[in-house]
Amino acid sequence: MSKLPDIKTNFAEWYQEVIQQAQLVDASPTRGCFVIRPYAYAVWENIQQELDKKIKDLGASNAYFPLLIPESFLKKEAKHIEGFAPELAVVTHGGGKVLEEPLVVRPTSETMIYYMFSKWITSWRDLPLSINQWANVVRWEMRTRPFVRSLEFLWQEGHTAHRTKEEASAMAQAALQAYKDMYEYYLAVPVIAGEKSPTERFAGADTTYTIEGLMQDGKALQMCTSHLLAQSFPASFDVQYQDSDGSMKTPYCTSWGFTTRSIGAVIMTHGDQDGLIMPPRIAPIQAVIVPIFKTPEEQAIVLEKAAALSQALKQQGVRVKVDTDVTTTPGAKFFHWELRGVPVRIEIGPKDIANNQAMLVNRMEMDKAKKKTPASLDVIAQATIALLDTIQQGLYDRALRRMQDNWHQADKLADFGPAIDTKNGLYQAGWCGSADCEAKVKEYKGTIRCLLQEKKHAVCFHCTSQSISDVLVAKAY
Amino acid sequence: MSKLPDIKTNFAEWYQEVIQQAQLVDASPTRGCFVIRPYAYAVWENIQQELDKKIKDLGASNAYFPLLIPESFLKKEAKHIEGFAPELAVVTHGGGKVLEEPLVVRPTSETMIYYMFSKWITSWRDLPLSINQWANVVRWEMRTRPFVRSLEFLWQEGHTAHRTKEEASAMAQAALQAYKDMYEYYLAVPVIAGEKSPTERFAGADTTYTIEGLMQDGKALQMCTSHLLAQSFPASFDVQYQDSDGSMKTPYCTSWGFTTRSIGAVIMTHGDQDGLIMPPRIAPIQAVIVPIFKTPEEQAIVLEKAAALSQALKQQGVRVKVDTDVTTTPGAKFFHWELRGVPVRIEIGPKDIANNQAMLVNRMEMDKAKKKTPASLDVIAQATIALLDTIQQGLYDRALRRMQDNWHQADKLADFGPAIDTKNGLYQAGWCGSADCEAKVKEYKGTIRCLLQEKKHAVCFHCTSQSISDVLVAKAY
Repeated sequence: MSKLPDIKTNFAEWYQEVIQQAQLVDASPTRGCFVIRPYAYAVWENIQQELDKKIKDLGASNAYFPLLIPESFLKKEAKHIEGFAPELAVVTHGGGKVLEEPLVVRPTSETMIYYMFSKWITSWRDLPLSINQWANVVRWEMRTRPFVRSLEFLWQEGHTAHRTKEEASAMAQAALQAYKDMYEYYLAVPVIAGEKSPTERFAGADTTYTIEGLMQDGKALQMCTSHLLAQSFPASFDVQYQDSDGSMKTPYCTSWGFTTRSIGAVIMTHGDQDGLIMPPRIAPIQAVIVPIFKTPEEQAIVLEKAAALSQALKQQGVRVKVDTDVTTTPGAKFFHWELRGVPVRIEIGPKDIANNQAMLVNRMEMDKAKKKTPASLDVIAQATIALLDTIQQGLYDRALRRMQDNWHQADKLADFGPAIDTKNGLYQAGWCGSADCEAKVKEYKGTIRCLLQEKKHAVCFHCTSQSISDVLVAKAY
Repeated sequence: MSKLPDIKTNFAEWYQEVIQQAQLVDASPTRGCFVIRPYAYAVWENIQQELDKKIKDLGASNAYFPLLIPESFLKKEAKHIEGFAPELAVVTHGGGKVLEEPLVVRPTSETMIYYMFSKWITSWRDLPLSINQWANVVRWEMRTRPFVRSLEFLWQEGHTAHRTKEEASAMAQAALQAYKDMYEYYLAVPVIAGEKSPTERFAGADTTYTIEGLMQDGKALQMCTSHLLAQSFPASFDVQYQDSDGSMKTPYCTSWGFTTRSIGAVIMTHGDQDGLIMPPRIAPIQAVIVPIFKTPEEQAIVLEKAAALSQALKQQGVRVKVDTDVTTTPGAKFFHWELRGVPVRIEIGPKDIANNQAMLVNRMEMDKAKKKTPASLDVIAQATIALLDTIQQGLYDRALRRMQDNWHQADKLADFGPAIDTKNGLYQAGWCGSADCEAKVKEYKGTIRCLLQEKKHAVCFHCTSQSISDVLVAKAY
């Protein structure tokens, strides 16, 4: 355990160190695959619990589809295989024999699910059909980074079929909105929701919607996506239904996914020089009680009070832990839990007990001189909950300010281009809609992250012909 | 939708039909892999929710380990690779290239997890270490049956490391007890918990404990297992720790798993000629309200009352659904929900409303003349909950009687052997402990399912030398 690399000057190393030291992940013997350790998995469980409710509110039912997909299935949708072919892991042997047809480990499940939809959808009465799957997927990435990009990751993938394009489009956008709520309300991460440019679309989609965020190093991170697949996939898999007028029709489909990358977004948005900061709504431990004592007599009194305090907090729904380890010092415990980003620390010692109080410490304000606030034991649960709310909001506000401070209005690519790589940040500019102009951004190591609703720029950042939409340009993970 | 095959004379076909018609599963294009459809997945979610609590009560934390394991890892434990080699799916290509070392799709995760344990366990202070993973695994089975045996299945796998063999043994048995509770309390399936004979042990285990059940056709089903792995695995993966006296030691390990096979056990234990019967504690829908009406006026009144009734039941924690479909008849709805095994049906029509009552129908008593009971609307929630409890207990009692009725005391294999295959059932006999005598049972298509605590037989069923333990013999899935 050593001091973390400087977060301001060496963000990439800070990230690698903090996730190791806080025991979020560990490297595995399989290249590019990471072990999600209990503390990080508990974050994922909290995310899953909230997101699963939202998905069910969207009308989707959970189901489970096979991991292994016949290779020929991926080839049925031309753009899909073009997009995914370089990323496939292929099973060629099973039960000691060479397989007649290789099986790919799912990189996503459209092909399997639309094949099943072709069996399940026969009448307009079967629509809309909304299915969700919590699963692992494998994509053969060459450059990996825990949570952000790995060979295997965990996600949910929603797949829906509808009678009309309007209904499908509304579904894709409703999923996007649910994701936005997850990021903003639960993860305290401000985001931008928008449409991807055609070149950045999911392989096989009509429209791809994205959620983008800004990390502390000024780089953008694509948080999750939602696709209006329209009719290309269902047509490729012969999904057809008899409409109420007797005619045979092809449904309009959507798919949308939210992954363990969200944990990476939390780390890179909220962490500081002392370690992680967990947003209270998804923090595995919201408050840690550190008992402070010297003599055995004090120990007995303080531990008893700490246990009672823990009970009181649990009853109010706070996820609380008492650090009862008697082999380490309070200082070592402070360090341990600050590194792990527990939002509230409650210190309690003999003097506090004599004063019927405990000290509340806000994880966001470690560097402030007057960081401890006394709270009466009579109202400690309410005070803790109030502080958790303050921190949840404070994290969001701080990240939002950072995004606003790094959001630049930009005109000519030749002017703002160099800053994309050297200063990072978000650049809002006009765009003519052509892939040629879009490609110019890559020369500066940037990409168009998404199209924006707001229109401030009249002409394209490159060709200066009329702009069809403002776009957000950034260097991205 | 047609009548189900006769459950008494054609159980295997009844099973295949009922799971299709009730939309629990569907065949996938990948041989031996099945799609778990929403109604069955909801059962799995309910099981997961309860089992996850039990696992956390056992002290284990959830984590996630990579799906793909270097092939060489499986070879580190000699018995393990011997047992699993014929069942492996192997990834030989990734990202369009041949891999330097093939990766196997995990058939179970001991090898990956003990490798990680070797990094995480260095001191006696790190013990016990208890990890659980909810995951998919792949075993290349040739003869498959949905839920019971498939190429891919879902499970949890617990892996723990301890300082002493006694502590590890206690852990393996505590996991077994948690599984027994799951089966008996939640799934209403009576089971036998016992030790496996040495030849039936998990590949690499010192002791394998098993939970066995009896299906309606008189065949036994291994429900789940828990293993005392002791030191072979940790030694193979160099898991070592410094004990409090400074010496280096190898920990004692356990592993234990509970799978989607449990859904198969529920179907084969409780189903009847009309379809499934879902034990209330894990039923996705515990009560279905079927509104009965003829005129539009009646429809408005009845649907309003049904909605109010549903609200009242939901408030009491009952998982309830109102079948509001106006395009099908009440009779069709009865059939639909009986097939799916919803334990309680609530019928409500204009006459019932006039009498301030609804009719409660018990799914276990479809064939009885007086199967409907009126319940006052003032106490309908309590009456429904009471009936759900009655059904939960009734299902367990009925299955327990069946097990008792089919449990035979047996002496000489030559006498009871022929009945194993022709009549099925459970046969309790003495056993000398030799693998030779055990092998004789296979000549009658039976196996020793487990050793029993109770000792009623003095001599071995085959060699007639002294018995070391009573065993349970049966034909099994």
